[in-house]
This record gives sequence, structure tokens and C-alpha cells, in this order.
Amino acid sequence: VTSPSCLTFLTDFGLEDGFVAACHGVAARIAPSVRIIDITHLVPPGDIRRGAAVLAQTVISMPPAVHVAVVDPGVGTGRRAIAVRAGDGVFVGPDNGLLSWAITALGGAASGYELTNPALWNHPVSATFHGRDVFTPVAAHLLSGTALDQAGTRIDPAGLITLSAPTNRMGEGEAEGEVLSVDRFGNVQLSVPSAAAGELGILIGASMSIRCNHREIDVPYLTTFGAAAPGELIAFADSAGLISLAIRNGSAAERLSLPSGARVRIAPNPASGPA
Amino acid sequence: VTSPSCLTFLTDFGLEDGFVAACHGVAARIAPSVRIIDITHLVPPGDIRRGAAVLAQTVISMPPAVHVAVVDPGVGTGRRAIAVRAGDGVFVGPDNGLLSWAITALGGAASGYELTNPALWNHPVSATFHGRDVFTPVAAHLLSGTALDQAGTRIDPAGLITLSAPTNRMGEGEAEGEVLSVDRFGNVQLSVPSAAAGELGILIGASMSIRCNHREIDVPYLTTFGAAAPGELIAFADSAGLISLAIRNGSAAERLSLPSGARVRIAPNPASGPA
Amino acid sequence: VTSPSCLTFLTDFGLEDGFVAACHGVAARIAPSVRIIDITHLVPPGDIRRGAAVLAQTVISMPPAVHVAVVDPGVGTGRRAIAVRAGDGVFVGPDNGLLSWAITALGGAASGYELTNPALWNHPVSATFHGRDVFTPVAAHLLSGTALDQAGTRIDPAGLITLSAPTNRMGEGEAEGEVLSVDRFGNVQLSVPSAAAGELGILIGASMSIRCNHREIDVPYLTTFGAAAPGELIAFADSAGLISLAIRNGSAAERLSLPSGARVRIAPNPASGPA
Repeated sequence: VTSPSCLTFLTDFGLEDGFVAACHGVAARIAPSVRIIDITHLVPPGDIRRGAAVLAQTVISMPPAVHVAVVDPGVGTGRRAIAVRAGDGVFVGPDNGLLSWAITALGGAASGYELTNPALWNHPVSATFHGRDVFTPVAAHLLSGTALDQAGTRIDPAGLITLSAPTNRMGEGEAEGEVLSVDRFGNVQLSVPSAAAGELGILIGASMSIRCNHREIDVPYLTTFGAAAPGELIAFADSAGLISLAIRNGSAAERLSLPSGARVRIAPNPASGPA
Repeated sequence: VTSPSCLTFLTDFGLEDGFVAACHGVAARIAPSVRIIDITHLVPPGDIRRGAAVLAQTVISMPPAVHVAVVDPGVGTGRRAIAVRAGDGVFVGPDNGLLSWAITALGGAASGYELTNPALWNHPVSATFHGRDVFTPVAAHLLSGTALDQAGTRIDPAGLITLSAPTNRMGEGEAEGEVLSVDRFGNVQLSVPSAAAGELGILIGASMSIRCNHREIDVPYLTTFGAAAPGELIAFADSAGLISLAIRNGSAAERLSLPSGARVRIAPNPASGPA
Repeated sequence: VTSPSCLTFLTDFGLEDGFVAACHGVAARIAPSVRIIDITHLVPPGDIRRGAAVLAQTVISMPPAVHVAVVDPGVGTGRRAIAVRAGDGVFVGPDNGLLSWAITALGGAASGYELTNPALWNHPVSATFHGRDVFTPVAAHLLSGTALDQAGTRIDPAGLITLSAPTNRMGEGEAEGEVLSVDRFGNVQLSVPSAAAGELGILIGASMSIRCNHREIDVPYLTTFGAAAPGELIAFADSAGLISLAIRNGSAAERLSLPSGARVRIAPNPASGPA
């Protein structure tokens, strides 16, 4: 088992307050030399699915780490606090599904623990700020040499809360998916892997038919938005291996009025001739 | 005296420009291995009280540190630049009240210095960017082993500019306070400590009467917003030990139209029966 | 040649997604102890000139470093990926002009390389995320001891794409420039160095005549906005050595409706008497 040396941190705490810094401080008091990589703290408040998506797509680029994630509208209620080993990482956070896609991305849960050992917490523990008082101190202790089985009671990973996976279905000559996320550039990431385009016979340079919002549009399937004309809507295989829609120097999300979760179907464009 | 190993940093510089990074760079040139914890750089421009509140609530979670804070509308004028030892920390910034609540939070000023030693500054010193040219280089030198009394002329801490404390008064069967801050979640933090609820006989689960904006509303006093129904307005003891108002999955600040500084009175709700 | 120990990072990736963190993670996997200083990630999407201006004004405060900058609307197309040594730094990014002003600020290009060595990249290399897959891994390798000439093919620095310099011209009794940037405080930074004020005989405390947007306004030339009355528009020599317009506790950019690139002329105010 690799020993992680790094703490990654994702929350919906925002950057205007001192919440993120308080967690950094608590971790630094326990593990002075720990390196912290902030993933993002701008998950929309309480948006567990968005947090789960960003976490899953980012952890694959990380060194061995303890990954702390806190989007936790149920803090202080009966929801469990957990630590889960997966691949070369350990995930620490609330048991509300937030961690589930990232755990899958690292190969699935090898073991799980409920955080029931108060010796690893920051006291007094507040009812509403477990990021500072439970999750980051536990992570810092794990990075300081405390064994994972000291974090609390062993639990069956099969019982962890799991978010339903985004729709991603191959049909008759088409793939169906949903909008997984919209990034800063207005690029619309679909839950359809680029491999599906290959299965449908859509090659780079060919035209792809997109059905969404009760309309059908044909867009070129290119390697990059940089290859499009300014203002042109295109599809491409993005850096996470998913099909995304983009407009060079513009926002595809705005043009298409496609929010997260919207259904989208993809098919070859028959008018584009043999692909 | 503990030797701090960490530099914390709070400003109103924002994140769009290179101002924060320039300060990090100057500190790294002087003290290459110093660890910097950014508290926030999104204090509204020139809002000294907001900066003071965030700083005071965050430093208590920090390891021994030199705390640099810069919300400094008077930069380049006669206002003094200071370094103040309090508890296991040293505060560096303008003498405009910004540091005062945090100094109190760490136990009060043990000693104070006016920054008059140009040997510790970054030259040429600009008239408007003392964050880069005075405060962070002084802090980095202190973290590199320069003694605090080398920072400049010793001054009497009693003469430091101090912000007036937020209203917090116990009256006849009620506590009076003000809105101290509104966080990213729209939670409204009052200047009333949760101990005041106890003194008023308001127990967890009972109803609390809130008077503000010429109206009176009754809200349940719970341990956490996570225990509320979605959309329900509640009061709770927050992670700083203060009474806060919150709406699960919503913004209490928006619902109540309560800005920072607004007056609020709290009392038991007689209709809720014996508490 | 000094060996840099620090990686600085400027992009238009924003902070909502995990893009910046993925780059940090890839760098940490290659060079676990590298120190990263984030300059900003809030360059407006695709705004190469804005990125170039922030980079050039910030790198001068940095320790010896590998500076990675990614504002790269042409990613995945024929634009070159480059590494350029200048002064005590190495710049890594796209060859689209983004790096050009910073290279000049550090003394000009000493040598240049096209990034053609895939052994230094993160595989598989995506078509659209060279920040993660090319630029930061190359930088991390350079910081881990890989020699710069291993990065790829040597190129002639004279052939690098260079942004046109902002207008800055001395005329008959006036200086002409343009708005270089507007910062978080609404301060309007002009491309006119403060030395030009001296050449025009405008001393601190005198009045300066500003012509822009078809009107002429007279403002005092002070050392700092802190010396102005609240609401008063003034000019001052800013922390980058350029003339800036500011309003204490207000936004000069808003008052003057001056966007980036707007033309501005500066002259002594004859009515202010002998300067």
C-alpha cells in the first residue's frame, strides 16, 4: 500500500470566508509539512452531483493522496462521516454520494470506515463545520502516520451511499446521455464517452447529429475547438474522454440553453455521407 | 516564545490580478521554504470591519504564524504600519483596526512595533502596494529568523487603532446584537454568543423570537441547518460559537433582507411554553 | 545559470472546475516537492493581452522560477508549444504572444525551444488540455533537473510570436497611451510610465489634464489614492511604475467608462500655474 503524501481538498465553502483556510490551518497544526492541493471550493452550495463530477475527473491526475471532499447539506444530522480506501488514495467526507464516482474512478472501494474515533478530531466539534473539526483533522492524522483502521469502525463498502450514474446508453444507431457539466468556457460536457462516437461510425471530420431540447442540430466532430471557426458550434472528445460541445470564443451552454442533467442524443448525420 | 513557521495572508486584493501572487513571490524570495496559507483575498475593497471579522474567526484555527492582513485604504498616508505579537502569533499590517479583533482573539497584544526598518522591505517601495513592499517582506524576514524587535520602533499597544466591538448586550429577557457577517450560504451570523441563548433559557428544540427590520419572527433553535426542513428558517449555534440564522438549501440573508450591521434582538418565544 | 525552484502558474481556467488542480496534481506527481505559486486563473477566457499584462507585471516579483502560462484558444491546432529562457526564469506555454511581454520584462529571450519531446508529457495527451498534458509536466521535469535543451527542438527566439506593445508615445507637451488594465479596485492603469509625467514637468501635487472619450478632465497628481478625498478622481504613479487613475472608495473605470485599450492623452494643466 502506497503511503499518500498529499491532501486534496474540494468543498462548496466558497472563497469569501475563512472556512477553507481554517481547514488548512487545522491540517497544518497536525501535519506541518503536508502538501495541500485545492481542487475547487466553488461547487454550488449543496450541489452534491456537481461536486462528485469534478472530484471524479480530477483525482485521476493526483499523486497518492488523502482526498477530502465536503459538500454536506446534512452536516450534524445522522449521515455518516466516512473514510474509504480506493486505489492509491483515501477518500474522507460525508456518506452522501459525493465521493462515490471518484471512488469508482480509482478502481472501487477496497475498505471503508465510519469516522467514530474522536481522538482524531478537532475539539470542541461544532455541529455544522465538520470540514474543520472532523474531515481535515482525520485526513491530516492519516497523512501523519495514523493507520486507516484507527479512523473508526470498519463498514461494508457495499453499504455506502452511491449517486446514480449519469445516463449513458447505446441505442439503435444513437447514443443517449445527459449534460454532465458546463465549464467556465461554456463547454457542455456530455456523459457520452468518445468511444461511443467510434461505435456509431462517427469519425473525426464527419458531421454529428445532436438531438436536445426538441430540436436537432448538425455539428462537425473535430479534435479541438481551436480548429473551429469563431462562433461555430462543434463537438469534440474532451480531456476527460467524453464528448463535449463547444463554440470557439463563445459559450455552447448559452447558445443551446443546456443545463446540467439535460438529455441529449447523438447520432451520425446521414446527410454527411459515408463516414 | 514559539517560533512561527507559517505565514497567513488576508487581503482585499481579489484574485483577478497578480497582486496576491506578487506578495507570495516576494515572500518566497526571502524565505524560500515558508508555508503560506491564504485566508481570503475577497474582502470587499476597503471593508476593514469585514476583514477584521474573518481574520479573528480564522486565526484561532491556525498553527503558530505570522499573520499578514492588508485592507488598507489609507496606504501611503500617515497611517502606521505595525507588527504586534499576540499569543503564538505575530500580526503584520496597517494600524487601522483591521488586526484588532484578531489580536483580542489570540489573547491581546503582548508587544507592538511600528515598521520603521527599511532593511526588511522590498525596494523601491511603492506608495500604494505595501502588501508587496512592506508587509509580506517583513513577515518573511520574521519567519527567517529576524527578531521582532528588529522590525522597527517599539510602540505602546494601548495606542493601536481598535475597531469598536459589534453590539452585544443582554437586556430584560432579551439579547441585542447585530449582523456580524453573511457567508456564502446566506447564513446570517449574529454578534450574539450562543451562551446568551442559554442565559435566556432558550434550549435546543425550543422556539426563539427574532426581532429585526420592524418585525418579529419565531424560529426553531436547532443544532444544525441540516436538521431543518428545506426552506425552513432556523437559528443555530454556529462554528464560531455565535447564533446564526439559516435556511436549509436557501439564503436567510436574502429572505430577511439583513445586511451586515443590522440590529437584531433575540428572546424566548413565550408561546412555545416552558423552555 | 540559476536553477529555479518554483513553478508559477497563470491561466484562464477559472476556479469552478478542477482544471487548475489537475495541473497541480500532474506537477506534484513528477516533482513532489515543487512549490507552486498561482498568479491568477481568472484571465478572461481567451484574453491573451490581459494574460500577458498580468504575467509581465508579476514575474518581476518572483524568485527564479519556471513560469507556466496558458491562455490558449488555439490549443490542438498548429500553434507551437514553447519553452523560453529569460533572465532567471524559464517560460513555458503556447507561442501566441502570451509570454512575450514577460520575456521582455525579464530581459529578453536567451534561448528558445519548441516542446517536441513527448517523454516529458503526460500521456495520453488530450487535444484540448495541454496545460495538464504538456505545459505543467514539462515545467515539473525542468524543475526536477531535466535540462532545458531536452524539452525539444531549439528555435530562434526572433521567430516567436510577439504581441504589439501598448501605445506609449511622447508628443508636443503631452503623452499618449492607452488603458492597459483595470484592477479589482476600479483603478485604471495607463501604458504611460510615471517618468513621462516628470518629462512633461508634472510634479506631485500639481494638476494633470487627462483627455479621453472626447472630454478633458483635470485631476491632481498625488502619491497615493489614500491621499485623496473620498470620491475624488486622482492620478498617481502605481506599483508597476505606470500612471494610474483612481477614486478613493470608488471605481475610476466606472466613472470614466474606460475599458482596456481606450486611448488616453496626458498633459500638464496650464491653469494649475507653474509646476
